[in-house]
Amino acid sequence: MSLQCCRHAPPSSSRLGPLFLLADCQTETGKAWVCPTVRQTLLQIANDPTLDHEYLPVLGFPEFTRAATELALGRESRAVIENRAGGIHTVGGTGAVRIGAEFLWRWYNTSSPTPIAVYIAFPQWGNLRCIFQDVGFTEIQPYHYWDTVRLAVAVEGFLEVLESAPDCSIVVLHAPEETGLTPKQWEKVARVMGRLFPFFDVPAQGLASGDLDRDAWALRHFVAQGFELFCAQSFSKTFGLYDERVGNLIVVARDNETLVRIRSQLQKQVMGTWATPASLGARVIATVLNNPALLNKCLRMLAEKIMLILEKLKEKLRILGTPGCWDHLTAQSGTRSFTGLLSSQVAFLEKHKHIYLLGNGQVSVCSINSHNLDYVAQSINEAVSSTEGRAQGLSWAEME
Amino acid sequence: MSLQCCRHAPPSSSRLGPLFLLADCQTETGKAWVCPTVRQTLLQIANDPTLDHEYLPVLGFPEFTRAATELALGRESRAVIENRAGGIHTVGGTGAVRIGAEFLWRWYNTSSPTPIAVYIAFPQWGNLRCIFQDVGFTEIQPYHYWDTVRLAVAVEGFLEVLESAPDCSIVVLHAPEETGLTPKQWEKVARVMGRLFPFFDVPAQGLASGDLDRDAWALRHFVAQGFELFCAQSFSKTFGLYDERVGNLIVVARDNETLVRIRSQLQKQVMGTWATPASLGARVIATVLNNPALLNKCLRMLAEKIMLILEKLKEKLRILGTPGCWDHLTAQSGTRSFTGLLSSQVAFLEKHKHIYLLGNGQVSVCSINSHNLDYVAQSINEAVSSTEGRAQGLSWAEME
Repeated sequence: MSLQCCRHAPPSSSRLGPLFLLADCQTETGKAWVCPTVRQTLLQIANDPTLDHEYLPVLGFPEFTRAATELALGRESRAVIENRAGGIHTVGGTGAVRIGAEFLWRWYNTSSPTPIAVYIAFPQWGNLRCIFQDVGFTEIQPYHYWDTVRLAVAVEGFLEVLESAPDCSIVVLHAPEETGLTPKQWEKVARVMGRLFPFFDVPAQGLASGDLDRDAWALRHFVAQGFELFCAQSFSKTFGLYDERVGNLIVVARDNETLVRIRSQLQKQVMGTWATPASLGARVIATVLNNPALLNKCLRMLAEKIMLILEKLKEKLRILGTPGCWDHLTAQSGTRSFTGLLSSQVAFLEKHKHIYLLGNGQVSVCSINSHNLDYVAQSINEAVSSTEGRAQGLSWAEME
Repeated sequence: MSLQCCRHAPPSSSRLGPLFLLADCQTETGKAWVCPTVRQTLLQIANDPTLDHEYLPVLGFPEFTRAATELALGRESRAVIENRAGGIHTVGGTGAVRIGAEFLWRWYNTSSPTPIAVYIAFPQWGNLRCIFQDVGFTEIQPYHYWDTVRLAVAVEGFLEVLESAPDCSIVVLHAPEETGLTPKQWEKVARVMGRLFPFFDVPAQGLASGDLDRDAWALRHFVAQGFELFCAQSFSKTFGLYDERVGNLIVVARDNETLVRIRSQLQKQVMGTWATPASLGARVIATVLNNPALLNKCLRMLAEKIMLILEKLKEKLRILGTPGCWDHLTAQSGTRSFTGLLSSQVAFLEKHKHIYLLGNGQVSVCSINSHNLDYVAQSINEAVSSTEGRAQGLSWAEME
């Protein structure tokens, strides 16, 4: 079940109605949270009488793609300086994955005698498999990097998958979302990926650690190691502007000539898919990205919001005496968190408490607010206490 | 060369710079014309503090698709009343053609033993062929419905093409754009299309005759005759909101059950392409479409603008004594007009006057304004007088 689909379900902060712990960042009253700075910028742009509403170029709003690409790779990135990295403004993160996947399929379909395999992390499997299947790939495999017993990243299994993957396989890497790998783990991943093509998926840079550069570490490490890669970037979660569909497909090539050739192919694809992307959302995001003060303000507000919710939830569970250790809640980062609840406990919450989360116990932290926190904590407590329990796993501190 | 691409070229109203007679509706100063009512509506929506910027549903903004579909088919359409017609909100008209073409390819690819042919009118050949090719069709043919000698619709040749087309061929029908067929000619077309699938392309309903219902005549006639069909609808030209990419794919099915099944397939496609469309543009268009007073105001302003320009150009050419008859200029309707200039005369304008139009002599009427009208008329006069001329064809009045 995809998070995106779940967001269409009516969110509720009431104890009586159903409660979906899958929505992205919400206000205290259960509405989607839009960064106030973003809302203000949108108004300024809509008010601009000189804006002529012409079509954007096929590859989108250049001020946006440049700022977004530099945000991800860093202004000092050698790939940026050597003019061999560039962005393509797309219709959301999905559009970026789609255009990238289609390019890779066409490229490999004419150059490789055997079908190319695609590896997608299990939590993103539902959303992304459809896209790769749609464009023509037939060999699509999920990989797991989360140990549901230890409630921690299982990097050994992930490395084994990568080592046994056929040459030229495409690996979709999710960073820094979810329960991210540490820099040392990413280094190991990069070392075994020399024969493979990395396709990064960065839906919410800055939201994991609250620090833009730290969240871009894995991607920048791959670029520094000389990888050619794609990166699908989205700004919906970061700024709450979900409905304007602002995405960017970053291409890092070996040299400028290759980049120009790839962009030319991507341009043909875009012309046959949506011709040019919508402009207003990208103008808003570009304005924020190009103004460091605005950007930092937005990110700080959101990261603080997330950490506060997790601290509060852990404290409530402690007070209620809920069995198990809940330190993993605050040891994780990002907008989505693994609660460590068993599928039977998830089913209990659904059946008896009308609280809905993913079957693997994952919730979107931002959907918890002061109106529903007590009810969520109390319900988790009952679920854990009343089902055949086991300890909620070890904390990260205990594992290390 | 596609009109869309040309719009990215810098427009100019100066005699010194290059003059592109290919841009869509422009202001007197050569900027893209945005209907003032639309601009005002956009501001109101952006100012709305209750707008939460959540994702739209996968198939888009329901108020928009319903209003747009009813605009095209008519509220009293049996297909609408019987709940067997519905819209899919897409990323512009291109997105509508893409999603529709992809559906048809998947449908026929599994149900037809032989490749299905696609017929596209010559003026739209460049843009649309890529899309049908991209999704998998291999048998794509252009058809001609414009007699370049008589400078009029050549319906006999078009009917011959349709009669000889293999069963189940897809025919992209352009109405009411360009030099439209008369209702009697459309009736003949519908009669020979029983074995074929009509895919209407309606990029600017209301702009051809200034009357929404008259411009929808052909589409409604096909629906009344019981055809199942697709229709790609765009609102960029009508309202000048090019950059917000507001399109609608209308599906007319034999019954509600079939419509529901098709929508379900289209939903899967959209999820793998752009997930959900951008919202703001569609909210603006929906507001205008659902308010008849606003809508009529927008359309009347634009249609009057176009007719005035053509009248002025014809009068200037008459005063200059330009060889040939120019009545065909005002006998046509729509934003694009065939000037009847020979390719040698088009080349003369390009080389000596820095005026750029399509090789077949087609111009976008709205790119002519009071600042460049004298220069355009004088240059056409020189082109016709100085090249090896022929009469500029017969007027429509003479042909009938």
